[in-house]
Amino acid sequence: MKNIIMLICVNLLLLSDISSQKEPKATEVWIPEARVVTPAKNNTPPSDAIVLFDGKNLEEWSSMGDAKAEWEIADNCMTVLKGKGNIKTKRDFGDIQLHIEWRSPAIVKEDGQDRGNSGVFFQQRYEVQILDNYNNKTYSNGQAGSVYKQHIPLVNACKKPGEWQTYDIIFMAPKFNKDNIKIRSGSLTVLHNGVLVQNHVEVKGTTENVGQPKNIAHGKAPIMLQDHSNPVSYRNIWVREL
Amino acid sequence: MKNIIMLICVNLLLLSDISSQKEPKATEVWIPEARVVTPAKNNTPPSDAIVLFDGKNLEEWSSMGDAKAEWEIADNCMTVLKGKGNIKTKRDFGDIQLHIEWRSPAIVKEDGQDRGNSGVFFQQRYEVQILDNYNNKTYSNGQAGSVYKQHIPLVNACKKPGEWQTYDIIFMAPKFNKDNIKIRSGSLTVLHNGVLVQNHVEVKGTTENVGQPKNIAHGKAPIMLQDHSNPVSYRNIWVREL
Amino acid sequence: MKNIIMLICVNLLLLSDISSQKEPKATEVWIPEARVVTPAKNNTPPSDAIVLFDGKNLEEWSSMGDAKAEWEIADNCMTVLKGKGNIKTKRDFGDIQLHIEWRSPAIVKEDGQDRGNSGVFFQQRYEVQILDNYNNKTYSNGQAGSVYKQHIPLVNACKKPGEWQTYDIIFMAPKFNKDNIKIRSGSLTVLHNGVLVQNHVEVKGTTENVGQPKNIAHGKAPIMLQDHSNPVSYRNIWVREL
Amino acid sequence: MKNIIMLICVNLLLLSDISSQKEPKATEVWIPEARVVTPAKNNTPPSDAIVLFDGKNLEEWSSMGDAKAEWEIADNCMTVLKGKGNIKTKRDFGDIQLHIEWRSPAIVKEDGQDRGNSGVFFQQRYEVQILDNYNNKTYSNGQAGSVYKQHIPLVNACKKPGEWQTYDIIFMAPKFNKDNIKIRSGSLTVLHNGVLVQNHVEVKGTTENVGQPKNIAHGKAPIMLQDHSNPVSYRNIWVREL
Repeated sequence: MKNIIMLICVNLLLLSDISSQKEPKATEVWIPEARVVTPAKNNTPPSDAIVLFDGKNLEEWSSMGDAKAEWEIADNCMTVLKGKGNIKTKRDFGDIQLHIEWRSPAIVKEDGQDRGNSGVFFQQRYEVQILDNYNNKTYSNGQAGSVYKQHIPLVNACKKPGEWQTYDIIFMAPKFNKDNIKIRSGSLTVLHNGVLVQNHVEVKGTTENVGQPKNIAHGKAPIMLQDHSNPVSYRNIWVREL
Repeated sequence: MKNIIMLICVNLLLLSDISSQKEPKATEVWIPEARVVTPAKNNTPPSDAIVLFDGKNLEEWSSMGDAKAEWEIADNCMTVLKGKGNIKTKRDFGDIQLHIEWRSPAIVKEDGQDRGNSGVFFQQRYEVQILDNYNNKTYSNGQAGSVYKQHIPLVNACKKPGEWQTYDIIFMAPKFNKDNIKIRSGSLTVLHNGVLVQNHVEVKGTTENVGQPKNIAHGKAPIMLQDHSNPVSYRNIWVREL
Repeated sequence: MKNIIMLICVNLLLLSDISSQKEPKATEVWIPEARVVTPAKNNTPPSDAIVLFDGKNLEEWSSMGDAKAEWEIADNCMTVLKGKGNIKTKRDFGDIQLHIEWRSPAIVKEDGQDRGNSGVFFQQRYEVQILDNYNNKTYSNGQAGSVYKQHIPLVNACKKPGEWQTYDIIFMAPKFNKDNIKIRSGSLTVLHNGVLVQNHVEVKGTTENVGQPKNIAHGKAPIMLQDHSNPVSYRNIWVREL
Repeated sequence: MKNIIMLICVNLLLLSDISSQKEPKATEVWIPEARVVTPAKNNTPPSDAIVLFDGKNLEEWSSMGDAKAEWEIADNCMTVLKGKGNIKTKRDFGDIQLHIEWRSPAIVKEDGQDRGNSGVFFQQRYEVQILDNYNNKTYSNGQAGSVYKQHIPLVNACKKPGEWQTYDIIFMAPKFNKDNIKIRSGSLTVLHNGVLVQNHVEVKGTTENVGQPKNIAHGKAPIMLQDHSNPVSYRNIWVREL
């Protein structure tokens, strides 16, 4: 009888140990914990975002020559000031999620690439095109939402000129090995006004207007916005490092 | 003199031909054209979306036994009706972009996995977890935004109980070869309330509560929403085939 | 006492059931079974390979105009016959593993791209370059082992002119959606003489000599070997469908 | 007349400049140059490889407790010495190409996982299974060429017991972010006796015998070979850092 009791105890011990394997617990992972982020609300960025532009000033930006950025600020947005050139962030970035809102001029002038043209360049090299493509035909690999001259957007999700539009972009930077050869391509996923237009496409190299993409080794680098002589406006720009 | 004139003409002809190579035109692609999609506006889905739920009825859904879906509809949303079981779309899907809005009950009861638990299953097999994780600790690989028991979300971007939350999800289906072995893993990218929580992660197989992911060959299949006995609500569900 | 005995029995039953969860068995997968392939031995191809050339004839090949392939066959190898043009397989292929052996002429003539130049094109569009790059400088993205004008090989693993060299290549074909836009890039992994020179790189589009890669939707297509006017030889060519 | 001559000269100058854009030169890339590697020949490793075992000694290896590795060396190969435990490289590795040759005992004893069992672990965590699977059934995700309990090999390419077999493996290490969450999965491509058995599959986490893969952040780490109590032999082991 004593032996039987002991056997029961052994069984129960085994049972408590083993049953943890049968239940869902066996496949639970408790560490690491995902840190808490308060999501965006009414154009307030997520709590862990670096705000690159909140409508007030260009303190996060400089000219290409590292001087003061001179685009126009009015009505809580910034606008390309023709001739002032591209601007770039003072910070360098690698893998990021970027949110950016842009607006092409309500009064339409010109056609094709001359209408509401600007662009957001990752690491100063890899452009997602900004263009007013609402009833405005251009080459497919140069329209809004394209990875410029590399990837046609899956669809044309442009709003009307004068309306604010959004890009939500996931950029993974390319990696180079000790021989300066690219060992992993960068990638881009782009939602244009909430519609998927680029789905984890590889970045082929620099997005050149003339000639082929180039793949010269580099590290983290600024985000750049393009002065293409059109008064495109921007607001609510934030970035989260991945 | 006549010869010289002719030579000039030949040169000019060559020039016009060749210069097209030097200018940006050489790298323009005009075909195919990206088709036009009107993006979502005030909760109207994009123009090319299949609307799975617009607040009115469950016509796109059925019970697991292919009978009428019996979740509750009220106030333009549908709510899990405990005991009525999971529901699934009548249509089958492969690669998609899914937008779905969900709300966990404002009055908090229970803890951990028993609080505001539901889930969206791609191809009836691969779950992105829905859970009220606002100040509610659970295992990391089972919290809101996780690929259930496969991938911890990068961050916890939950809103408060009773607030509407969004998932924007890009799902690429796995591919199987003629020997029924998986030749390409599926992938998931998830934005939770606009914050990236899954970045093109591979789907390891079925998202099991107990045991390992399974990888049994299959084709297109429905989206499924889970009845986990909690009255989680849904609205504004649409899908775009990629 | 009777109750105790019963409890023990219940425990033991549970135990046998539960312990299967604790032991390795819980994570074993028995189906599908990997089918048996006898690997290559002494230049006999793997048992499931389609032999494209075994030294005897060109029955698996045709000219570009679907006429008889007219390259030279001698000494169990086939050699580019200048002016006879490229040749292509009669079969179409998608995702494959390719083994191919090639030899540039032992007597070196010319330089750069004019020395031992040929190429293997997947789906008639995507070239892995064949070139005698032993002490022969050319542009990096056009040397042996490059994805022509797209990806520099990680290293130059060429043997001497006149020696047989091997390529073991894994090619995954690009996928296009219903709008004829590329939804997944193709990829190439290349071992040159057993040394990794391309590591799952994306295929940017057609490998053009002049201008940019093109991405026009297509299905399965032949493998093509290039007549670049140099008497490059081939032997032991086989392919496995993935 | 003088003007006409001048015009011709200007044209010719333009022509020489522009024609460089039309010709292949426009898309040539000369920098960086791929460095030269002498490929393997008669079991001599490639010239840039780190030789981990050349048949003579275990100087590149240690026991798990960082003591002397004690496996047997004879006939230019090393053999698991039952009870001496796993061995690991003294060096740490990230992304690599690995060549390894192994042989299961010619005299077959036991069945299933008890026949010729060993394994090569990348970063001490991620196992490609070594097993005598010639006419020896076991679970598919645990046979030779499997990523242990994660990925079934595409085919079973085993040679007979007592014959030397090869693995050519490309391993890309996983990346973790500052929150210690995996931001890129590792990947494995495996050729078994020259036959593709794993095609750029994702590493799901540690390859556990019991329970789920784990994903705890880590950096470079040793290669480990397993003592599974069977006298499996190894020879000609080399690695190239990518």
